[in-house]
Amino acid sequence: MIALPDGLDTPALVVDVDVMEQNIRSMAEALAARGVALRPHFKTPKIVEVARRQLAAGAAGLTCATIGEAEVLADAGITDVFIAYPVWASEPKAARLRALAERIDLSVGVDSVAGAGALAGARAGVRALVEVDCGNRRTGAAPEEAGVVAAAGADAGLDVAGVFTHGGQSYAPGEEPKRKAAEAEVAALDLAVRSLADRGLAAATVSAGSTPTAVLSARGVVTEERPGTYVFGDRMQLVIGSCTPDDIAAVVATTVVSTAVPGQFVLDAGAKTLAKDGAPWLAGHGAVMGYPDAVITRLFDHHAVCELSGGAPGPAAGEVVGVVPNHICPVVNLAAEVVVVRDGAEIDRWPVDARALNH
Amino acid sequence: MIALPDGLDTPALVVDVDVMEQNIRSMAEALAARGVALRPHFKTPKIVEVARRQLAAGAAGLTCATIGEAEVLADAGITDVFIAYPVWASEPKAARLRALAERIDLSVGVDSVAGAGALAGARAGVRALVEVDCGNRRTGAAPEEAGVVAAAGADAGLDVAGVFTHGGQSYAPGEEPKRKAAEAEVAALDLAVRSLADRGLAAATVSAGSTPTAVLSARGVVTEERPGTYVFGDRMQLVIGSCTPDDIAAVVATTVVSTAVPGQFVLDAGAKTLAKDGAPWLAGHGAVMGYPDAVITRLFDHHAVCELSGGAPGPAAGEVVGVVPNHICPVVNLAAEVVVVRDGAEIDRWPVDARALNH
Repeated sequence: MIALPDGLDTPALVVDVDVMEQNIRSMAEALAARGVALRPHFKTPKIVEVARRQLAAGAAGLTCATIGEAEVLADAGITDVFIAYPVWASEPKAARLRALAERIDLSVGVDSVAGAGALAGARAGVRALVEVDCGNRRTGAAPEEAGVVAAAGADAGLDVAGVFTHGGQSYAPGEEPKRKAAEAEVAALDLAVRSLADRGLAAATVSAGSTPTAVLSARGVVTEERPGTYVFGDRMQLVIGSCTPDDIAAVVATTVVSTAVPGQFVLDAGAKTLAKDGAPWLAGHGAVMGYPDAVITRLFDHHAVCELSGGAPGPAAGEVVGVVPNHICPVVNLAAEVVVVRDGAEIDRWPVDARALNH
Repeated sequence: MIALPDGLDTPALVVDVDVMEQNIRSMAEALAARGVALRPHFKTPKIVEVARRQLAAGAAGLTCATIGEAEVLADAGITDVFIAYPVWASEPKAARLRALAERIDLSVGVDSVAGAGALAGARAGVRALVEVDCGNRRTGAAPEEAGVVAAAGADAGLDVAGVFTHGGQSYAPGEEPKRKAAEAEVAALDLAVRSLADRGLAAATVSAGSTPTAVLSARGVVTEERPGTYVFGDRMQLVIGSCTPDDIAAVVATTVVSTAVPGQFVLDAGAKTLAKDGAPWLAGHGAVMGYPDAVITRLFDHHAVCELSGGAPGPAAGEVVGVVPNHICPVVNLAAEVVVVRDGAEIDRWPVDARALNH
């Protein structure tokens, strides 16, 4: 687990650069061994320095959720970006896409005939990838309808370059959900590729991805994977078995500000720092390092209330502890910067370049 | 309800300035009529322009949760600030308190003998207010122990100026929880004042507050109230009966990006925009304006999945809708700026000055 430097102002988001580098290398090597490209999702780190290190380790390009994230990458000189999201390309987003596509190689998701029409109407000069649903039931056309969307886009003048999916149903404990979600990704993409082929369209890019499934679905028709969370890890990935405690590269340093109410202690990291992401299979709002019996039962804007079961001793008021967040993506987005450490000593600070650029 | 301007880039946080001004006036007048000071909580708006308008309407000063928020107010020339939080005053926070107290009139919370000792040790020249717990079970000494904390602080050289509490248990539907929480605030503060008096200490400031209880507990020993959410309102305040639909001054404008999966529509405002705050008595992650049968059942980083019951018609892909957030405080903290509107037309943009300053 990460050792925290002394004297930090809290709450602060701390990143262990060596653990992060190991995560970057491991994923790159695992996918390279399978002959599948890695396009890490920038929505997790939102930090240009992290993206640069992922590219240096062999990533083919970056994935984004928003035009704002892609603009940050373009400003940093990163030139191959896929916005894996069904962007609705009306103004003013259409103008932003046009400006961006003049600067970088840009791909954008579509998941409907109407959306493809809007993107074609934007005349942005982007590549389009058709999103298909593999059981996550969020966005994405039915796989067998991918060709209908692709053909409509192509007829309207879009450069349709392939298909993509996200097996988000992989987020559950145990091996079975991960294996099934990976199978669902491959099967849906296979159907989608055939659906395009039926209309005489080729899928040069066939993209899957989530951290739990990234290695498992790197096979068959799949040409690239888009994991994001793997770079830092988090408590959900720990509990679902997609990382080990040694892979956790980011924790929130927070001070015990109160032990006034008996049976609990209170940290200065609230929902504006830890976020309220959780899951039915995850008790509490984060894991307090060094206090495995503590459960963060209530999270207010600026307070985390931690209850101790069975009379276990808690930290003293004034002590600084680390909390492994349930879900790291929203936590990074809440921070202005991360404190970069090596062997428990601060060596740098990195701004969260794409913080709040969720449009 | 707020009318949204055309052509917004989404997601965007929209504030109707006339509704906000009405909220500012109403609370100021209600407390002035009771002879109780209003010290609005800055953790809700985090926008200097809003704080200035609250002061112009008669507020006695501002409340903050963090030193960072207080620094923003000091930079804006606002000179009377209470950090209603048991700040643990070790370095580097001690140095920040010292620097701040040279610029403004600053009060800081303490809730234990040890915390009072740490604050005294910081030699910051701040006033201390003792926090007591009135049943919220978060922070705060037992009311009858307030004098022990105050006396320890005074002995260590602190200027102990009073007591405060927060009846957060008021957050529940119906009149009864609000009435009981307000009674608990007044009773706890009464006990705390007596506890100080027993040790020969006076409480010049006796401070209560939450938006649901602010007017109800403005009586007896109470000298000031610290509501925050009232300035914008939100869905929780609506459901618990602390505001009406006409009082909602802030909504998230968001675009329907997908209707590909049957029975639902998907918005581009996810957890990084709407936050995941909720309550057992509140279904879903926000209220979709104009579509009362829609429930935001799943909230991902960049997607809100809205399900429609009973075959009610939903919005079309590409349509921009407003979402009333469950809890406005974390939502403002997620935005870089707010779009200020009047009668449905954009008239200004205000930066969220204290965004991410949660330390």
